[in-house]
Amino acid sequence: MALRKHVIGTFERVFQSYGFLPWETPTLEYAETFDGKSSEEAQTLMYRFADRGGREVALRYDLTVPLARVIGMHPDLPMPFKRYHIAPVWRAERPQRGRFREFWQCDVDTVGTAQPSADAEILAVVSECLTAVGFSTYRIALNNRKTLSALARYSGASPGQAGHIYRSIDKLSKIGADGVRAELLNAGLAAEASDRVLELVSIEGENAEVLDTLERYLAADSEGVSGVREMRAVLDLLPCFGVEPRACTVDPALARGLDYYTGIVFETLVEEPKVGSVTGGGRYDDLVGAFAGRPLPTVGTSLGLERIMEVLEELHLTPAPRVSADVLVTVWDENALPNALTLSMELRLAGVPTEVYLGAPGNLRRQLTHADKLGIPLTILAGPDEHARDEVTVRDMVTGEQRPVARHGAATHLRAMIAATQETPA
Amino acid sequence: MALRKHVIGTFERVFQSYGFLPWETPTLEYAETFDGKSSEEAQTLMYRFADRGGREVALRYDLTVPLARVIGMHPDLPMPFKRYHIAPVWRAERPQRGRFREFWQCDVDTVGTAQPSADAEILAVVSECLTAVGFSTYRIALNNRKTLSALARYSGASPGQAGHIYRSIDKLSKIGADGVRAELLNAGLAAEASDRVLELVSIEGENAEVLDTLERYLAADSEGVSGVREMRAVLDLLPCFGVEPRACTVDPALARGLDYYTGIVFETLVEEPKVGSVTGGGRYDDLVGAFAGRPLPTVGTSLGLERIMEVLEELHLTPAPRVSADVLVTVWDENALPNALTLSMELRLAGVPTEVYLGAPGNLRRQLTHADKLGIPLTILAGPDEHARDEVTVRDMVTGEQRPVARHGAATHLRAMIAATQETPA
Repeated sequence: MALRKHVIGTFERVFQSYGFLPWETPTLEYAETFDGKSSEEAQTLMYRFADRGGREVALRYDLTVPLARVIGMHPDLPMPFKRYHIAPVWRAERPQRGRFREFWQCDVDTVGTAQPSADAEILAVVSECLTAVGFSTYRIALNNRKTLSALARYSGASPGQAGHIYRSIDKLSKIGADGVRAELLNAGLAAEASDRVLELVSIEGENAEVLDTLERYLAADSEGVSGVREMRAVLDLLPCFGVEPRACTVDPALARGLDYYTGIVFETLVEEPKVGSVTGGGRYDDLVGAFAGRPLPTVGTSLGLERIMEVLEELHLTPAPRVSADVLVTVWDENALPNALTLSMELRLAGVPTEVYLGAPGNLRRQLTHADKLGIPLTILAGPDEHARDEVTVRDMVTGEQRPVARHGAATHLRAMIAATQETPA
Repeated sequence: MALRKHVIGTFERVFQSYGFLPWETPTLEYAETFDGKSSEEAQTLMYRFADRGGREVALRYDLTVPLARVIGMHPDLPMPFKRYHIAPVWRAERPQRGRFREFWQCDVDTVGTAQPSADAEILAVVSECLTAVGFSTYRIALNNRKTLSALARYSGASPGQAGHIYRSIDKLSKIGADGVRAELLNAGLAAEASDRVLELVSIEGENAEVLDTLERYLAADSEGVSGVREMRAVLDLLPCFGVEPRACTVDPALARGLDYYTGIVFETLVEEPKVGSVTGGGRYDDLVGAFAGRPLPTVGTSLGLERIMEVLEELHLTPAPRVSADVLVTVWDENALPNALTLSMELRLAGVPTEVYLGAPGNLRRQLTHADKLGIPLTILAGPDEHARDEVTVRDMVTGEQRPVARHGAATHLRAMIAATQETPA
């Protein structure tokens, strides 16, 4: 929980620094909302049931279709409209005992503009989010659906085979060129068409070279050319956002699964360890407009919170965020309780998160163990001796060192101690 | 959304200052989890359906039964264990078109201790939360289930009639003594029993007097006496938490609906306007232990986020929290875009949440309208004149005043301007 709070808090700060607003949609949607708006797979994996009025409802499968529905209901929203939403979604994949398919998504979208600056900003936000939580070895892979459909046409495959092409080339890094070729032939592509697909998706080099080469190949296909130019425009703007050019590389094989993308698509890959993509998104210019009844070009991304937390934990990239109190005030005996409570309130008022032991008073060993289990770094002991001297004893739970502190002004003293601890790098 | 974020953020700060940890449970539970653990009403209003493995699941109806289940699964948790959870729950009440019965709850609980200091702390947390969001005219009403069951025995009613008594006296402030008497007679209580009930629930005066009188009436009932003594112990500790004694008043008629309470029960009533209870809770010593298979006395409360937000809005108690950016950087034309993006990044790095206009460049009127709609207080204009002078123009969107600022150092300047604005009381 602490790590999730930390990651979410970090992402929210980044989103808000760019002016993205928190905007939440309900957990339950009428099932019909998803009809024709989500893939067949989504339809299969959606939790659907009848509400008490007998209408079929569904637990949201993603945060995108609900966004589109709600935007459609608010014709007066200022455009471009930028929102984020961090919340659970549900997919009924392989249920196991005690384990439901609930996981958190984190979406950030800019609705109502087709400008490449909006695309570049989403990439900058992704980059800043990942840097802010501690990643250094990640790479944004960029492609464009327009280029991809031009590639399918260029290959000479029939229009009905485009979907097969996207699905196969997306696996290039996993199954290699031979694997992709085998899949394409298996799907009924001619050998020549397969070769032409592989020719294009294997283009390598600096971004500018890759884009130039692609543009030469696709010169006769105006949609393909505009896809290339969109990528060029986005890449040109990234330095203005402080994103290093090498953080984002054009990958002509990147397709991504969702049907609704219409322009750039991208994924962020964590390279060390090789966990695959931790974020993914793109431009989808038709989905929101379909609900709103007017064109509302949109670009957005999902950050995979669960995956990101897993990687952070595996890499020990994030200091264990502590949400427990800074101080535990122990309770010497029943008579010491009012003083302990009063001291704990003084500490809170001084800005120090403070827990007072709420179990049976006495038994200090149990209380110190309690602090240890919770990871509370400082404890306060105050028995009859301390009381007589108008002091309390502060115990550092890490070193075991104890020192007396005047009862009067204990709050100020402890606040300084904690500030000093927090300045020490982890 | 902004108000919800503000209220939740405020509550979280208070909870964490007392050492409560964020601890979340899933949205879906196996339906059987709720069997025998929640009221008949809860069973009726629960959204239940079969998962893909064919097992019946339910959307959580409250945050308490799921807490109890999860605590039962973690035998090694340090006790007392203090957690909070802020999340939606679902109740299938009167479905209306487009309106689902999803609402947010905010729960805070201390598990594993029967000490009155834990009860007092929960009341202190409630009081501090309400004060922190701006309430001044609220009152915590306090009673004890042990006293109530003693009252039922004292009346001479049959044990089966206790539930009727609780339900009726809980309405005393709404329907008056005559209304309560009529309900009791209607439920089959003898006239004498009804009179004895009303005699006790009508006790008035300072807390000490009310408790003394109750204890005299119930002197022969040891459970009743211990209920009174528990309330006395809690009230004695409140001043240590800085809670004024008059903020909490003993109300012998307070019953609260939930079956699982075993000790103190309490509600917070907002008196101006008379909206009824905005928080409610109590001690429930048996529910958590039933899952854990060992005694785990627990005290906790729910804060009704929706109700609290409604009241805050109605009373204008909270300044409209602004989550939009502090600055909109406008884009003079296509050529000015890179400079606009670069400036906006400088502002963000200087800690100023900044939106850059992402629609088509040019048309400044549209961009200023955009800032107005979003409530962004400052805009930056930079055309060829400003560019020539190496300046930008800062426009105060409230006063309409414009002033030139050197481009170099604009971030520092704007940060100071915003800090100055924020120091001005609303």
